[in-house]
Amino acid sequence: MKARIKITLKNGVLDPQGKAIGHALSQLGYDGLSDIRQGKYIELDIAETDPAKARGAVEEMCERVLANTVIENYDIELDGA
Amino acid sequence: MKARIKITLKNGVLDPQGKAIGHALSQLGYDGLSDIRQGKYIELDIAETDPAKARGAVEEMCERVLANTVIENYDIELDGA
Repeated sequence: MKARIKITLKNGVLDPQGKAIGHALSQLGYDGLSDIRQGKYIELDIAETDPAKARGAVEEMCERVLANTVIENYDIELDGA
Repeated sequence: MKARIKITLKNGVLDPQGKAIGHALSQLGYDGLSDIRQGKYIELDIAETDPAKARGAVEEMCERVLANTVIENYDIELDGA
């Protein structure tokens, strides 16, 4: 089962990477952009066919390792057994 | 209009970050994981109400700045005007 995890900074947490991207884009003439935030994206295959168990395991991994839950949120999508 | 961009390494491109995550997780006792890949995730607000134009603009940004199309793929999701 494939899990796709998006890890984003919480609102209010300073995002220098996002700022740098916004700056680069505006220098290249792209206007009308706002609220640019960069996060991480992780894909993994988990050998677990029960979606509820798979989600539980991936959530635990996010809490323990993948995300810093003090400053980051995570969002898990699962697909296909 | 909100755009969400996932930038992932192409298949076959070495992914040391993904490998490191896999290693850390297996040391913590998470088994049955494979194909772990890390990419980037970018969210931005674009002041463009036409979805086709917004997608075109974001695609151009990906090609020019956000992704290295030699080694990376990108995937754009747009929502809500």
